[in-house]
Amino acid sequence: MNRKQLIDQIKLKQSFLCVGLDTDLTKIPQHLLNTDDPVFEFNKRIIDATEEFAVAYKPNIAFYEMLGPTGWESLKKTLDYIPENIFTIADAKRGDIGNTSGYYAKAFYDTYNFDSITLAPYMGVDSIQPFLRDDKWAIILGLTSNEGAIDFQKLELKNGSMLFEEVIRKSASWGSTENMMFVVGATRGEMIGQVRKIIPDHFFLVPGVGAQGGSLEEVCKYGLNNDVGLLVNSSRGIIYAGDEIDFEKHVFEAAKDLQLQMKRILEHANLV
Amino acid sequence: MNRKQLIDQIKLKQSFLCVGLDTDLTKIPQHLLNTDDPVFEFNKRIIDATEEFAVAYKPNIAFYEMLGPTGWESLKKTLDYIPENIFTIADAKRGDIGNTSGYYAKAFYDTYNFDSITLAPYMGVDSIQPFLRDDKWAIILGLTSNEGAIDFQKLELKNGSMLFEEVIRKSASWGSTENMMFVVGATRGEMIGQVRKIIPDHFFLVPGVGAQGGSLEEVCKYGLNNDVGLLVNSSRGIIYAGDEIDFEKHVFEAAKDLQLQMKRILEHANLV
Repeated sequence: MNRKQLIDQIKLKQSFLCVGLDTDLTKIPQHLLNTDDPVFEFNKRIIDATEEFAVAYKPNIAFYEMLGPTGWESLKKTLDYIPENIFTIADAKRGDIGNTSGYYAKAFYDTYNFDSITLAPYMGVDSIQPFLRDDKWAIILGLTSNEGAIDFQKLELKNGSMLFEEVIRKSASWGSTENMMFVVGATRGEMIGQVRKIIPDHFFLVPGVGAQGGSLEEVCKYGLNNDVGLLVNSSRGIIYAGDEIDFEKHVFEAAKDLQLQMKRILEHANLV
Repeated sequence: MNRKQLIDQIKLKQSFLCVGLDTDLTKIPQHLLNTDDPVFEFNKRIIDATEEFAVAYKPNIAFYEMLGPTGWESLKKTLDYIPENIFTIADAKRGDIGNTSGYYAKAFYDTYNFDSITLAPYMGVDSIQPFLRDDKWAIILGLTSNEGAIDFQKLELKNGSMLFEEVIRKSASWGSTENMMFVVGATRGEMIGQVRKIIPDHFFLVPGVGAQGGSLEEVCKYGLNNDVGLLVNSSRGIIYAGDEIDFEKHVFEAAKDLQLQMKRILEHANLV
């Protein structure tokens, strides 16, 4: 999916909601455990209940990987099921030397047909370049929302920048606003504004709204740009909104609720 | 496998050779392509031909991941086939927020039964801690041997260190020499010496000898410690040493040749 198509979907749905498919067999409704492929059956129902409100789905790859080969079967079926006009993100945090990164790109872009993948930047340019393709997106970790973000990302460099600023500035120069996004954590809005100054036009993938504690208003205040420029993720707050036989109803309501908040924000900013 | 068991194996085999299982269907001998599971059949033959000389095997996970679910089946069979007294490394470069890292640990330590996994440090302490377990090893990217290492790893910090030095110093404090190793690239020996000063007792996983251009003598000159402290990897130089029907003979010779060089180095350093 290219940038224009993504922006069109955002305006059409009046939503920049990404639903995180962190599908965990210990948390999904009990009645699905009797099906042949509970992970896929759950995802299918989540997609059915939220596709009206979501512009992106983001499977967290660890949840599938830990299940062994069958987890990847469930993932493949999920990707095949997601409607083509919805953006897909492999939340995989990959990154390796050039030829190996090329194989990861092949895995996620070709074997599973994802539109994008999250990447760890530590290994530098040749670990990122294989993921830059037309209509595919490298989503690089800039500033994350976890406690460990302080350990290295916020180290001060000799040139006065913090490491995450340098990572964003330099890696943005390897691609374009058409094939690169950045993960920018949501626990403090000012930091999002700081990143927005460095890369005014890129899309940000913002985790951490909801269970991780970020505020949607705050994220938008500092992060919106003229093309919206945000994909805001919610995982647990939506997919585990219910755990009984009628869980889809609660999932639908939770997604709708977030979409309505987004709609109001977009209207207020004259973006729809 | 714990540290004592690993060191015992190194002394017994007079070798600190890690064989990288970067198994690529476009490079393995043609006659194996007619078998049911060419990736596993190739790995099996590589293991048979090298187990006398290798103290570790390191599948590069990207090569399996790009094959879809069947790649993971081949990986599982490979892990089940590797003799129990040989150390296994998932070269996966994972790392995510705490609960997600916990699931990656479950995937590689439990589902596939690896002894260790390589990790990217960018997300900090909570991305690493779930991998610290008794008899399991977190192998953290310190200094890598690829061209992109210069982009961030060698940035100078305000405190005068380079980023990779700070990463190694800080992350070493989260674990011990019993559950943590570091990836230290081999293209320049002095840099290995620089890391050895920071962490005199940890094991280093050294990629890049052979195809990536590092010299074994140089690595050992700067990297050996009293417990040997090195696992030196060779992938392509060994596993693709032959490509005909008798390829195992060439693989055997290539592994033996490296082991003999290691034996001489260990003897010279009075370590065996």
